[in-house]
Amino acid sequence: MSLLVTGSIGIDTVITPHGRADEVLGGSAVYCSHAAALFTAVRLVAVVGEDFPASCRAQLESERIDLAGLETRAGSKTFRWAGKYSPDMNDRETVDVQLNVLAEPGARVPEAYAQSGLVFLANTHPATQLELLAQVPGKRLSVCDTMDLWIETERDALDKTLAAVDGVIINDAEARQLTGRDNLVAAGEAVLAMGPRFAVIKKGEHGAMLVTADSVTTVPAFPTKQVCDPTGAGDSFAGGMLGYLDACGQSDVAALRRAVVRGTVTASFTIEDFSLTRLRGVTADEVEARVRRFVAMLRIE
Amino acid sequence: MSLLVTGSIGIDTVITPHGRADEVLGGSAVYCSHAAALFTAVRLVAVVGEDFPASCRAQLESERIDLAGLETRAGSKTFRWAGKYSPDMNDRETVDVQLNVLAEPGARVPEAYAQSGLVFLANTHPATQLELLAQVPGKRLSVCDTMDLWIETERDALDKTLAAVDGVIINDAEARQLTGRDNLVAAGEAVLAMGPRFAVIKKGEHGAMLVTADSVTTVPAFPTKQVCDPTGAGDSFAGGMLGYLDACGQSDVAALRRAVVRGTVTASFTIEDFSLTRLRGVTADEVEARVRRFVAMLRIE
Repeated sequence: MSLLVTGSIGIDTVITPHGRADEVLGGSAVYCSHAAALFTAVRLVAVVGEDFPASCRAQLESERIDLAGLETRAGSKTFRWAGKYSPDMNDRETVDVQLNVLAEPGARVPEAYAQSGLVFLANTHPATQLELLAQVPGKRLSVCDTMDLWIETERDALDKTLAAVDGVIINDAEARQLTGRDNLVAAGEAVLAMGPRFAVIKKGEHGAMLVTADSVTTVPAFPTKQVCDPTGAGDSFAGGMLGYLDACGQSDVAALRRAVVRGTVTASFTIEDFSLTRLRGVTADEVEARVRRFVAMLRIE
Repeated sequence: MSLLVTGSIGIDTVITPHGRADEVLGGSAVYCSHAAALFTAVRLVAVVGEDFPASCRAQLESERIDLAGLETRAGSKTFRWAGKYSPDMNDRETVDVQLNVLAEPGARVPEAYAQSGLVFLANTHPATQLELLAQVPGKRLSVCDTMDLWIETERDALDKTLAAVDGVIINDAEARQLTGRDNLVAAGEAVLAMGPRFAVIKKGEHGAMLVTADSVTTVPAFPTKQVCDPTGAGDSFAGGMLGYLDACGQSDVAALRRAVVRGTVTASFTIEDFSLTRLRGVTADEVEARVRRFVAMLRIE
């Protein structure tokens, strides 16, 4: 079991209808690694600036997350993001973004991680994703995320990354933008034509869709009234999914379907509070109990 | 087995990214009754004007739909609606609406229908819904739909109707407007506080949610690339759901969950072509085959 997770570490300020959280730990790699750590041991590869607060560093620590790949870069500043959600929390506006260290060369993968079996490339510049992938020759399975910015401005680099990975996990708007298809089944199939053997399209409060060469699976989100802050839900989904795949040691369609359920349930905890508060408090047993409820909800007839 | 369906019969003009259909048969009671007829015998109660075309009347006919409650009102005109869908077909704009006979007193329930076991009140003025309900003293189960117009302008009458029915089937925007709650689980619970013992919230391409006093079930829509015209999907969902409930003779949570699946699958046929074209062509066996696929898709772990 060895899942390598890379992506952003940030200092977030988040405003939702339920309140606000100022300068809290955030970033795709943070949510993703903590979500994955509920299922497997995680190797985190990411960069922060020398301004990274001790309080954030303390929250990053976890028994199941190896921080040997966390670089604190002298003379650089940590990525910062501030966002505000709409009343129904289905939309959000970026109030401020400071790329800082994310605009510099990416993290190096420690020698000891070269044989990691699974690699998840959370959203960052596609060329950086590809470089990182090349540093893990031992991988059995690689999966990437991306975002609108790269789809629009770095399409050639992104195409190379997509051709190199086994799977993609993106949201519905990104899937439509990437493929030019409005219908999500068609969009999923179009993503497969770019290289990956599976595509997962995240739909926020509406769940997720898994598309493979010969199957389509749609699952709803876990129904809940406890939605405090949706930030990190998508990354928690990816982390839960990848963590489960690493732990179960399989990646056939049946395993991918089970992994989508784990991702869905893991994300349902993240959104119950700001930042990592709920995700860090949840236990593997609590996750499994909610997985059982979710699976039972979907078992009809 | 005796399901009474009431609602609108209309002449629709529909424009979608896939083409257009001019002056075709439409209306909530039409989709609902044809959907329900895949599962049970249906008694249709509705009014058309003397202008109702013979071609539309021919399409309305079905072995399993009793038209004794269809009134052709002399001196009146049939309801007309024209709408245009957005490129992704998640939004539509009403281009033209002529209430015509729908603005007049509602249809009378034939004496022979007074002992109908199930009643579905598709969207119309809530006072008309309540009047119709009173004409079916033999009902075991009654369910209603409504729309933004009545929520906004006829709240007192709507509250009386909601207090009188066993279940409600509405879409997500209506649920939010009716209850003032953005979260759909909370909205569903707020609907129950108004009287009904179950609420079904339809989410279009994102599926549906069933809320009862002690359960929440969310199912996705049937994933498909074949979406030609979403008109009537919600009414087909309601018809499939009610038709199944009538056929199975139960309405406990397990039966409601099975019914939601039948509604979902029935609607997935309606949207494959304009007007009633696909729904009239589909067989009960085709529906059951797709139900089995859908149930298998949701059976995970």
